[in-house]
Amino acid sequence: MVNPVVPSNGVLTPLGLDAVRLSPGFWGHLRELNQEVIIGHCQDWMEKLGWIGNFRGEPARGREFADSEVYKLLEGMAWARDPRFDELAETVVSAQEPDGYLNTRWSGDRYRDFEWGHELYCYGHMIQAGVARWRTSGEHPFTDAVRRVADHVCRRFMDSAEVCGHPVIEMALVELYRVTGTERYLEMARRFVERRGGPALAEVEFGRAYFQDDVPVREAEVFRGHAVRAMYLACGTVDVAVETGDSELLAAVEAQWERTIARRTHLTGGMGSRHSGESFGDDFELPPDRAYSETCAAVGSVMLSHRLLLATGRRRYAEQAQRTLYNVIAASPASDGRSFFYTNPLQVRVPGQASDGVNPRAEGALRAPWFAVSCCPNNLARTFASLPAYLATGTSEGIQIHHPTPSEISHDGLKLRVETGYPWEGGVAVHVVSAPAEPRRISVGEHADLRVWAPGDVFAVDFDVQPRWVQPDPRVDAVRGCVAVERGPLVYCAESPEGGPSLELLQVDADVAPQEDVVDGVVELDVRAATLGEAEESTLRLVPYHRWGNRGPATMRVWMPGK
Amino acid sequence: MVNPVVPSNGVLTPLGLDAVRLSPGFWGHLRELNQEVIIGHCQDWMEKLGWIGNFRGEPARGREFADSEVYKLLEGMAWARDPRFDELAETVVSAQEPDGYLNTRWSGDRYRDFEWGHELYCYGHMIQAGVARWRTSGEHPFTDAVRRVADHVCRRFMDSAEVCGHPVIEMALVELYRVTGTERYLEMARRFVERRGGPALAEVEFGRAYFQDDVPVREAEVFRGHAVRAMYLACGTVDVAVETGDSELLAAVEAQWERTIARRTHLTGGMGSRHSGESFGDDFELPPDRAYSETCAAVGSVMLSHRLLLATGRRRYAEQAQRTLYNVIAASPASDGRSFFYTNPLQVRVPGQASDGVNPRAEGALRAPWFAVSCCPNNLARTFASLPAYLATGTSEGIQIHHPTPSEISHDGLKLRVETGYPWEGGVAVHVVSAPAEPRRISVGEHADLRVWAPGDVFAVDFDVQPRWVQPDPRVDAVRGCVAVERGPLVYCAESPEGGPSLELLQVDADVAPQEDVVDGVVELDVRAATLGEAEESTLRLVPYHRWGNRGPATMRVWMPGK
Repeated sequence: MVNPVVPSNGVLTPLGLDAVRLSPGFWGHLRELNQEVIIGHCQDWMEKLGWIGNFRGEPARGREFADSEVYKLLEGMAWARDPRFDELAETVVSAQEPDGYLNTRWSGDRYRDFEWGHELYCYGHMIQAGVARWRTSGEHPFTDAVRRVADHVCRRFMDSAEVCGHPVIEMALVELYRVTGTERYLEMARRFVERRGGPALAEVEFGRAYFQDDVPVREAEVFRGHAVRAMYLACGTVDVAVETGDSELLAAVEAQWERTIARRTHLTGGMGSRHSGESFGDDFELPPDRAYSETCAAVGSVMLSHRLLLATGRRRYAEQAQRTLYNVIAASPASDGRSFFYTNPLQVRVPGQASDGVNPRAEGALRAPWFAVSCCPNNLARTFASLPAYLATGTSEGIQIHHPTPSEISHDGLKLRVETGYPWEGGVAVHVVSAPAEPRRISVGEHADLRVWAPGDVFAVDFDVQPRWVQPDPRVDAVRGCVAVERGPLVYCAESPEGGPSLELLQVDADVAPQEDVVDGVVELDVRAATLGEAEESTLRLVPYHRWGNRGPATMRVWMPGK
Repeated sequence: MVNPVVPSNGVLTPLGLDAVRLSPGFWGHLRELNQEVIIGHCQDWMEKLGWIGNFRGEPARGREFADSEVYKLLEGMAWARDPRFDELAETVVSAQEPDGYLNTRWSGDRYRDFEWGHELYCYGHMIQAGVARWRTSGEHPFTDAVRRVADHVCRRFMDSAEVCGHPVIEMALVELYRVTGTERYLEMARRFVERRGGPALAEVEFGRAYFQDDVPVREAEVFRGHAVRAMYLACGTVDVAVETGDSELLAAVEAQWERTIARRTHLTGGMGSRHSGESFGDDFELPPDRAYSETCAAVGSVMLSHRLLLATGRRRYAEQAQRTLYNVIAASPASDGRSFFYTNPLQVRVPGQASDGVNPRAEGALRAPWFAVSCCPNNLARTFASLPAYLATGTSEGIQIHHPTPSEISHDGLKLRVETGYPWEGGVAVHVVSAPAEPRRISVGEHADLRVWAPGDVFAVDFDVQPRWVQPDPRVDAVRGCVAVERGPLVYCAESPEGGPSLELLQVDADVAPQEDVVDGVVELDVRAATLGEAEESTLRLVPYHRWGNRGPATMRVWMPGK
């Protein structure tokens, strides 16, 4: 199965990249942009900055976790079956030590800092890249290196009490177990998950919640601390729970997810409310301006929602993944694929400053070509490359299309062609290309039909994509008195490029329905607005949040004060 | 003149600690608490943690700027004429190198990091301690050491292009010039001020605005970056401007101050909106929950307002200092003087966790006895010790009482005894103890009377201390739809200890005037409140913000949603 997540059991079965093929459309375009631009962009920057050179023994460059960036890109190349994989993989493998250890920063000074050293974190991403290679094209010198790393980890850590300050190895080891059948990888992952919160790590400035070491994972009530770490750990926990049949552990993550979505997640699906510690805030601490909403946390959130969807079949998880895909993942890259948002705030008061170099900060006011910590572009590269894996699932009953987009989907004798202008239009036509003689259920979101299908049949559904005003939870102090606009899965925002109208004393009239206007295939919206204290109303143009910031420095707001 | 700030010219003349004596009252109590508890508390902790031992050559402990904490405490001891000064000063002097260099962290590896090394910053605080000693009790081996440090700094930096990443040496050198008359100290300070923004420092993760090196000081429009650094630099800039007669430079700081007060200052007078970088936010970015409002920034803000008051005589500066003194400075120490707020947020959603040890984080949910970075307690120690210096000023016309509190004030033949229950009561009776035969103007805030006074005369004024509802600037998104209550100079808040009512869905009725209730001499207030969506109203007790958190872990909010 060519898919990053292949559980041995669960309510829904993932479909491989060979079973879901994207046609030109919203996601097809982004996947193509990834293969044509983003992957090469990432490789060029990491070559230029010496992060790849680190594997060649060149003078050390970049942060202590720079290896992981190269692995994320390798994973993206593997899912994309990109021929650039081989040479880059060879460079990586050449740096491995005889006992399996592989890290360009700490070689010779191993495992001295589990809080910040990131060695196991780097392995995690390397293993995920290996899994991608295995599943797309089979074994390779790189997959041998991955096995040596995993065996080294098991030897070194199976009976220790240590964990990594940054989770990811947990889900990576489970997936490697799923590929290889080697049970010690699963056991190692299980131990890493269960050790956390003992505590297993030292106190740090941000507190142990920063790396989810404050409370054992099965006792926690909500996601907290560094949002990417929290998402990755939760993914690994679900994977362990599913493979070991630990329904209590799975239920714990489900409960944490529910509370986090209700109380700690931005309208866009973004996670993280604090720049300090790149972390979740308290319940209902959801500032639009200082929303951290890191692109990588969204990547982790989609990975988690997808795992929970596979395990439980609850549509709720797919809906949250969809919100996050359209409003964070799709928002990060510029339309040309050559710059990225690291953070994805819901309000920008001061236009960002354009830069064509490395941004030393995680900023969200303007996209940057690269960052001193450049996890996000590489994380997007692997996400876009494996995107078909998230769009649909199968069961013995039929096919579930979770995110309608132009594509071809095959499963168990049923082959479908999805035609849709979604999310701009609500209509989705699922054409049956071939079908078995037995009844099959085809579902698209909440719509489903179970019958015997014949080639040429069309299952047509229509999603409501009327624009709608939405109100925040009254407990979210930071957006009290504000409203926002959504349309289908898209969140909208007011964007004012330099010289445009001020968004500062804005008031919008939520009693008047937004009017649609299609510009270059994109649905924009007009609402009625005024300046506070002035009677005169005018028209305010809203654009889909994921499109903002493509016209140069601008102010922006998703939540707008209502009248 | 026994005063930390003695400009050679200006509209108002400071009065020394010998000319203003506090009697029992609001500030007299805090100054006494400082001398009886806080100073010793600070010394004990710094002895225990080895920060004082660093000067004895013991193994290095604490952060790279730990020396400065000892200097701040020494300054406090000097203003308090505390006999513990001598021994601690001797310990410090013993660590000085023959050429004047003195730093326990970088000795042997000098001046290699101006962004983070803090060597000149530490000197600045040492010099301020020396000035305090000079002015209270005259020369001392410590003041000799201070002169050697200052001479070393002038030799090393007069013709270099360097500045310190953390300002403070600028104002310290000007004050040392004022004490000694040595003009090169002033020139050195002037150069440090003017070099900034060239830029003079390297880019750091937080950006050059973090240490005010983004723009030359006379071109800046607003305070920005790390709030304590911004305040200290502005103090030094005013000092340089006043001594060199640079009215353009003074006007620049005044304009920066105006904009900062209008757009970047919390209702309490607190400064700093971001935990990340401990910094100012953008204009109108004033989140109550994540308000950083560091105690040290308030100390710096009072120092700055006082300097601007002396230079210009504008009452506005005294009013801002008063707001900050009552609602940040007075809020930081617990009522027993043994724990402190580092940050002073205006809303706390999750009660803090009690600790009797060192708090590794700068938190504001509960006071802590000490912090890994423990600038705030020491900064309070020196502020409380020198507090009389800020309360009143003189001119040839008479005496200006800026902050009415029980005290005795003498200037130029006029001696006053101030009797008042302020801020709990609005009445202030200024009794004339002795007076010259010529007319003198006595002013208390905006009230003034110019005449010939005789012993026994009383100048009685009455400030309005009726509680009042206040509205935020509509551009402050984070508190839209909220109201707060003030009474005289005090900001109030709702506080709910554990087990108390939830402040989450609170709505208060700002059409009903708050009712007063005096509890142990403290005026508390009752307002009408309801839970959102419920009709039933009940009484909500508000306490002065500076008293909150003295009854254990609690939630709290200053800005409350209005009906």
